[in-house]
Amino acid sequence: MAAFYATHCRSYSYTYSSSINGGRNQRFSFSSSFLRLSVPAKAKVFLQSQRNSYQNAVLMQDVATKATTVEKETGLEKLKDELLSVTSSKEWDEKAGFDINENESTVSITVVGASGDLAKKKIFPALFALYYEDCLPKHFTVYGYARSKMTDAELRNMVSKTLTCRIDKRENCGEKMEQFLKRCFYHSGQYDSQENFAQLDKKLKEHEGRRVSNRLFYLSIPPNIFIEAVKCASLSASSGNGWTRVIVEKPFGRDSESSAALTKALKQYLAEDQIFRIDHYLGKELVENLSVLRFSNLIFEPLWSRQYIRNVQLIFSEDFGTEGRGGYFDHYGIIRDIMQNHLLQILALFAMETPVSLDAEDIRNEKVKVLRSMRPLQLENVVIGQYKSHNKGGVTYPAYTDDKTVPKGSLTPTFAAAALFIDNARWDGVPFLMKAGKALHNKRAEIRVQFRHVPGNLYNRNFRTDLDRATNELVIRVQPDEAIYLKINNKVPGLGMRLDRSNLNLHYAARYSKEIPDAYERLLLDAIEGERRLFIRSDELDAAWELFTPVLAELEVKKIIPEYYPYGSRGPVGAHYLAARYNVRWGDLGVEQ
Amino acid sequence: MAAFYATHCRSYSYTYSSSINGGRNQRFSFSSSFLRLSVPAKAKVFLQSQRNSYQNAVLMQDVATKATTVEKETGLEKLKDELLSVTSSKEWDEKAGFDINENESTVSITVVGASGDLAKKKIFPALFALYYEDCLPKHFTVYGYARSKMTDAELRNMVSKTLTCRIDKRENCGEKMEQFLKRCFYHSGQYDSQENFAQLDKKLKEHEGRRVSNRLFYLSIPPNIFIEAVKCASLSASSGNGWTRVIVEKPFGRDSESSAALTKALKQYLAEDQIFRIDHYLGKELVENLSVLRFSNLIFEPLWSRQYIRNVQLIFSEDFGTEGRGGYFDHYGIIRDIMQNHLLQILALFAMETPVSLDAEDIRNEKVKVLRSMRPLQLENVVIGQYKSHNKGGVTYPAYTDDKTVPKGSLTPTFAAAALFIDNARWDGVPFLMKAGKALHNKRAEIRVQFRHVPGNLYNRNFRTDLDRATNELVIRVQPDEAIYLKINNKVPGLGMRLDRSNLNLHYAARYSKEIPDAYERLLLDAIEGERRLFIRSDELDAAWELFTPVLAELEVKKIIPEYYPYGSRGPVGAHYLAARYNVRWGDLGVEQ
Repeated sequence: MAAFYATHCRSYSYTYSSSINGGRNQRFSFSSSFLRLSVPAKAKVFLQSQRNSYQNAVLMQDVATKATTVEKETGLEKLKDELLSVTSSKEWDEKAGFDINENESTVSITVVGASGDLAKKKIFPALFALYYEDCLPKHFTVYGYARSKMTDAELRNMVSKTLTCRIDKRENCGEKMEQFLKRCFYHSGQYDSQENFAQLDKKLKEHEGRRVSNRLFYLSIPPNIFIEAVKCASLSASSGNGWTRVIVEKPFGRDSESSAALTKALKQYLAEDQIFRIDHYLGKELVENLSVLRFSNLIFEPLWSRQYIRNVQLIFSEDFGTEGRGGYFDHYGIIRDIMQNHLLQILALFAMETPVSLDAEDIRNEKVKVLRSMRPLQLENVVIGQYKSHNKGGVTYPAYTDDKTVPKGSLTPTFAAAALFIDNARWDGVPFLMKAGKALHNKRAEIRVQFRHVPGNLYNRNFRTDLDRATNELVIRVQPDEAIYLKINNKVPGLGMRLDRSNLNLHYAARYSKEIPDAYERLLLDAIEGERRLFIRSDELDAAWELFTPVLAELEVKKIIPEYYPYGSRGPVGAHYLAARYNVRWGDLGVEQ
Repeated sequence: MAAFYATHCRSYSYTYSSSINGGRNQRFSFSSSFLRLSVPAKAKVFLQSQRNSYQNAVLMQDVATKATTVEKETGLEKLKDELLSVTSSKEWDEKAGFDINENESTVSITVVGASGDLAKKKIFPALFALYYEDCLPKHFTVYGYARSKMTDAELRNMVSKTLTCRIDKRENCGEKMEQFLKRCFYHSGQYDSQENFAQLDKKLKEHEGRRVSNRLFYLSIPPNIFIEAVKCASLSASSGNGWTRVIVEKPFGRDSESSAALTKALKQYLAEDQIFRIDHYLGKELVENLSVLRFSNLIFEPLWSRQYIRNVQLIFSEDFGTEGRGGYFDHYGIIRDIMQNHLLQILALFAMETPVSLDAEDIRNEKVKVLRSMRPLQLENVVIGQYKSHNKGGVTYPAYTDDKTVPKGSLTPTFAAAALFIDNARWDGVPFLMKAGKALHNKRAEIRVQFRHVPGNLYNRNFRTDLDRATNELVIRVQPDEAIYLKINNKVPGLGMRLDRSNLNLHYAARYSKEIPDAYERLLLDAIEGERRLFIRSDELDAAWELFTPVLAELEVKKIIPEYYPYGSRGPVGAHYLAARYNVRWGDLGVEQ
């Protein structure tokens, strides 16, 4: 196996383990690393039939079918021919075809907007983590691109300040950092200058040599210069013989119209499958796990519909405000910033029908179907709020409009709650409640699934009058402190028949010793590997905007005044009334959570 | 509330609580103690409508309707009249009618066979625990009855050695013990002497004075003297104006015939509802919780049938042998000792249809129906074993037949595994596997529910070839270290798509600080209160014997040789072949448990 070109950082298998209660954990891992190959689609069947060790490689199909349109086949054609002539697994090993590939290809990752916050805090650290975990190809180069003048050494110095090692993997960390930094370079240029990008292209070529050169651009720049930068990168710095991919970050417009315009403009320079629209919530561990939970556990199968689920809640809260960075936010507001993308994406994954396969297109097809089955959000189903100043323990917390970057008298919501509905056979009548806010009492992102009452419950008398509190609830806590728990009614030990709601718990920190990778690591690796499952396709984006555009327009046209809530509070009371209207109680604000 | 005669030890309510992960437990208890009243049935509706605080008293109905046949209404008639004339809750309080009742009734508990092991280890300590928890009526007396000569002081001395205080309730324990021991007396007599029981009756009357006298006899004596003792107690020591109840312990015969003879003989002297056939497994906390789990959690409702459940396993193991006490055991064997009663009772509770109510008769009706839907056990569906000597770490563990009280060459099984089937609409084709053994590698009692495969599982490739290990499993661990856990497939955190089976856990010791009461406490209290839910009705007993009698006879007639297994091992290999025949894998003997 070692002779292969492979990224051992990812494995695709099943581990038998036991984790009931402290001290007795045994783990028997039968995992085998999955080899990530860039092999043309036609070689796929061959690979699967020849190599037993691939049979648990669930994403093989994805990888193989990814070698499509824009990915130019050159050296790969030759490799394919070699592959197809191999007949025994022994011969296969000897061919070592992948070492050729390995030596013949390289990836250049250009972070456009390298001096920005996101780049420093997330992108460079994620790239380093991937490098540390042996997830990056053998030949790779990282380029920082920004307007400011900087030397390679200065970039390295800047980057090195934010690199960290995994808590559970500290060996050789300093050495690894040094090696990584040696692969980092800087190029100063304007975002709208083809000439500057052409200079970058020249430098990239020097690193690439005669290898197949794959190029990934991460656009970490403000939306108003997106298009220009894409144009320049595409026209002046595309790969000549490998793939070129561009990761773009939200905002993807402000509404249907501007989003469509952005997509149209992007597509002048890029094919759809060169565009990787990132929603970093899709890279989060527990969001990734949502499909695993749903589709690989029989116990959830009968439960996942209107017949058993009373309502679903998607909750996001931050315990801080804009804190001097409200300029960008004020132009968008919380609905665009969190709901229309992060929460809606989770909703779509949660509610979609079973896809034909785990292939990106199959999953994205199902997500689009759910989004298109949804009723556009009505004004009466939205509550908006904005945080106001609050004095607590002698400390004065600012109002949103105290932020100097926020226009005076801004009505931009920093909180919103909404009730959404999916008009299909599975979800008809089930309220999907969303809530997102800044400057609240806690920091949290979670999915709460509240189940219906037990019909003809023999124990009804035990539950007093408040039957709603006695229903089952599945909570998937995305952050912080990842966990899954299922609230069940249980007999309190003792001679009487007292019931309570206890949790069947899976607390990640207690169960898994491994540090959970940051969402950006997964997404960057996926982009490098051409795995599109967790990126947003343009039709998804269109469908998402269609749900929110009318109400966003109405809020602005009617100048709806947000309900003011104190900084650090539990948010506007209006959210409770909205929930009550649909017979829902927010699961995160009770005596029990 | 304090003015009432009430046993505050039992409450029947719902507690809102949260227990996700260490350190953050909050508990908001809204429980209210339930008053256990001996009130005639007619007063029931009145009680419920007048007192809001009763509305969560699930067992009210049970208690009230228990005032039937043998329970003579005397002072209670007067009380009833008083109750029915009460109109306001204030008046109600002032009447303090229950103090009259309290002062007018008394319970005498006679432990027949007071010097035996069970009495010392379980019955007296359970009575003390009930006393400590204020569960016993104000006026009560405990009498030890046995053949040996002993003074009250000697009995008290003997009993005091086995009393313990709850770990979580140590205050005044010594004082409480002293008070309890003062209520304990001894009477020496033959088990078959009406004269001796008449002497006991005289002593009991002295304690009872002019109060309504209720009498409970606990027969902790060998089966061959059951009937004589019942005859004497009934004829010479029954209560004249209250109830008389008799608790009997297994064995209830050796087969259908002898069991029927025993029942017939008992019924010469006692009505069916005076007989409390104890199966102490039914008093165990997690067995009690089985119905709560099933019937008060919607999430289990769709799962509880052949459609989702692949098999159910009922497992009992002890890590010691007969150790010199094999004389009694050898006459019965493990099938009669554990399977036909404990495991079958759990099976019936697990598999029964939803009862009309939680009333004893409703539950027992459903249990009988399940038992009557079962196929009598076939010889080919049984594997028997007997432990043999084993040398481990220099220690020699004895064979069953090394026990001097065991006849040489005994073929009595100390281990058995069996596959049973319920031929009804819910369970058709689902194997119910039982396994029970002595001198095994661990001590355990548990219920394991293995669910079916996920149809069309998208993640099949992740599970390699062994799909059976990737199905959900619900484990209810009855002892030791009570727990409920649900095995689910989960994504292992990390960049790949590696799955494992993790547990959604509810570990009692971590969740509940309260010590779990011994099964005998619950059962004794139930007998005193006339709650028959956890006792075996004679038709249940008949149905249970019908399932096992043919195969027991066949084993004996054909002198089937048990499969010998080493002391301390995992039991005979034959159990695996039996399971394999029905496509089952024992859940307790894998790499994961």
